Amino acid sequence: MTSRERFLSACACQPLDRPPVWIMRQAGRYLPEYRALKAQSSFLEMVKTPDLAAEVTLQPLRRFALDAAIIFSDILVIPEAMGQGYKFRDEGGIAMDFRLENKAQLDRLDVTGVAQRLDYVAQALKRVKTELKGEKALLGFGGSPWTLATYMLEGGSADDFERSKAVFYSDPALFNALLEKLTAALIEYFQMQIRAGADAIQIFDSWGGIIAGQDYEAASLKWIQQIIAALPKDFPVILYAKGTATQLTAQAFSGAKVLGVDWTIDLALARKLVPGNVALQGNLDPVLMNTSPEIVRREVTKLLKAMGGAPGHIFNLGHGIMPQAKIECVEALVETVTNWKS
Amino acid sequence: MTSRERFLSACACQPLDRPPVWIMRQAGRYLPEYRALKAQSSFLEMVKTPDLAAEVTLQPLRRFALDAAIIFSDILVIPEAMGQGYKFRDEGGIAMDFRLENKAQLDRLDVTGVAQRLDYVAQALKRVKTELKGEKALLGFGGSPWTLATYMLEGGSADDFERSKAVFYSDPALFNALLEKLTAALIEYFQMQIRAGADAIQIFDSWGGIIAGQDYEAASLKWIQQIIAALPKDFPVILYAKGTATQLTAQAFSGAKVLGVDWTIDLALARKLVPGNVALQGNLDPVLMNTSPEIVRREVTKLLKAMGGAPGHIFNLGHGIMPQAKIECVEALVETVTNWKS
Repeated sequence: MTSRERFLSACACQPLDRPPVWIMRQAGRYLPEYRALKAQSSFLEMVKTPDLAAEVTLQPLRRFALDAAIIFSDILVIPEAMGQGYKFRDEGGIAMDFRLENKAQLDRLDVTGVAQRLDYVAQALKRVKTELKGEKALLGFGGSPWTLATYMLEGGSADDFERSKAVFYSDPALFNALLEKLTAALIEYFQMQIRAGADAIQIFDSWGGIIAGQDYEAASLKWIQQIIAALPKDFPVILYAKGTATQLTAQAFSGAKVLGVDWTIDLALARKLVPGNVALQGNLDPVLMNTSPEIVRREVTKLLKAMGGAPGHIFNLGHGIMPQAKIECVEALVETVTNWKS
Repeated sequence: MTSRERFLSACACQPLDRPPVWIMRQAGRYLPEYRALKAQSSFLEMVKTPDLAAEVTLQPLRRFALDAAIIFSDILVIPEAMGQGYKFRDEGGIAMDFRLENKAQLDRLDVTGVAQRLDYVAQALKRVKTELKGEKALLGFGGSPWTLATYMLEGGSADDFERSKAVFYSDPALFNALLEKLTAALIEYFQMQIRAGADAIQIFDSWGGIIAGQDYEAASLKWIQQIIAALPKDFPVILYAKGTATQLTAQAFSGAKVLGVDWTIDLALARKLVPGNVALQGNLDPVLMNTSPEIVRREVTKLLKAMGGAPGHIFNLGHGIMPQAKIECVEALVETVTNWKS
């Protein structure tokens, strides 16, 4: 059984001797070979140059026996392709080129041709697909409409998301028009990723957890559902929404085949809450990767035991790996999962 | 029926025509009269001067028809009284005077006499109690052992709580010794607050939500349970733990009479998850207080309707009110709740 078959079987909740494993942000700053490339090109240059994006995507797979690659890219390429660019602030965080204030600005954002302008992502996916030779799964990804909307409405990274929520509560016309536009752009973008060879798509609803519980569906989930409904029937979509523990049941009926679970939820409890035909992905605390291989082995084993070999588990962290993570901890994680027999 | 009786009835899950209402951080920077006092004294001077602390505590009750006062203080007075002082960083956040590194440092922290060194809190409570004339409820409060431990182990505010978690996972002896000491100090402190007139105690487990779901009980909840068990039988304790949605059921069996719920949880759903003999407090998104009275009235009404007059509801925000909150929004909130008839 190839890694790709293992990964797709887990998405379909078929029984396996051990879960497939990959790591959110596995191509990243904790890898010396990534830092070496990053010293020569900016993050966005790497994202937009298919050869570089493909190389960075493949780096972690050369080091670790991971079952899946995830294309090296960024969720904010979507607003950029629509006409709202961005840069990284020196002090950390994102600054959009402007803050979306009104309908006139929104009307100027262009959805038609978004996929064409993001052709560099398709090119990178195709290069990686060739390299993987069908052995490993290849993941595409994008942000959720709500998560992207927060950056556009706040003009960048935010602490309290005051303006995004103010627009949601006070200007439904502007809110819905923006979310419709993002939903259309994302459908086009994901269809392109699938044509370019993605075996699965992960939707990052990174800020799904900041809206009031009773408004999560209207602000975020319903747009995600529209996207999934527009993709090929039964295509595996992984929905990762941080801080949305009480939404697991609603998410389970979104059409996503897999729910990504953050580390604050007991995964065995999540398994009880979510119907058995929906897989779970996660959920080791990423901070553990900064400790020691002994602790990682112990905690990975605990998690695997707690899941008791239940079908439909993709092993991962509960959030992206941190720059200060230790290589030997990643090795310990991957070895413990790949040597597991349930 | 006085406000105090209404508040205590809600804690006991008795039926009421409308819920009592108070606002987390109601004595704070959004009030011009608070800013006027703050211009003359530092935050810690106000906390440590009983006349000033009492005055600040009473300010919001002069403006709004709130049912409860909460003593103006800070959770970090406990580590300070044990020998680990702190200050506010100019750039925001907390800096402890040192970072707790080992058992020798821990041994030097002094629990005996903590309550005596915090007598200024008792004095402030007594002054407020006299002013309230038994009409309004008076709340004391403190941090949870885990939440206080994070500041002590990190040496201040933290982003990822790496060191707190590293100690939890790799040095249980140090972790447990620290948490035992904090638990003992908090028991003494809360008993003193009760003697000084507190009608209820709120425990802020502000960082309860950052530990792995399966480890929340060992890291935080079990210490809170020990504290509650040591207080007078049936004394109302409110447990507010941010970001711990999947722990509601466990928290319901902690001995707390009331669970504070953050805004990311649908409160009507929480009502279904938590046994009917445990009250709920919350949970409007604090960001709504920065919008407009119309939106506040609409959202408060929605929340009251969703709860359907179920006994055991204390109306509050889902987190502390922000400095930029509008007075007219607070007025709209309090008026809507106090005029409600269920």
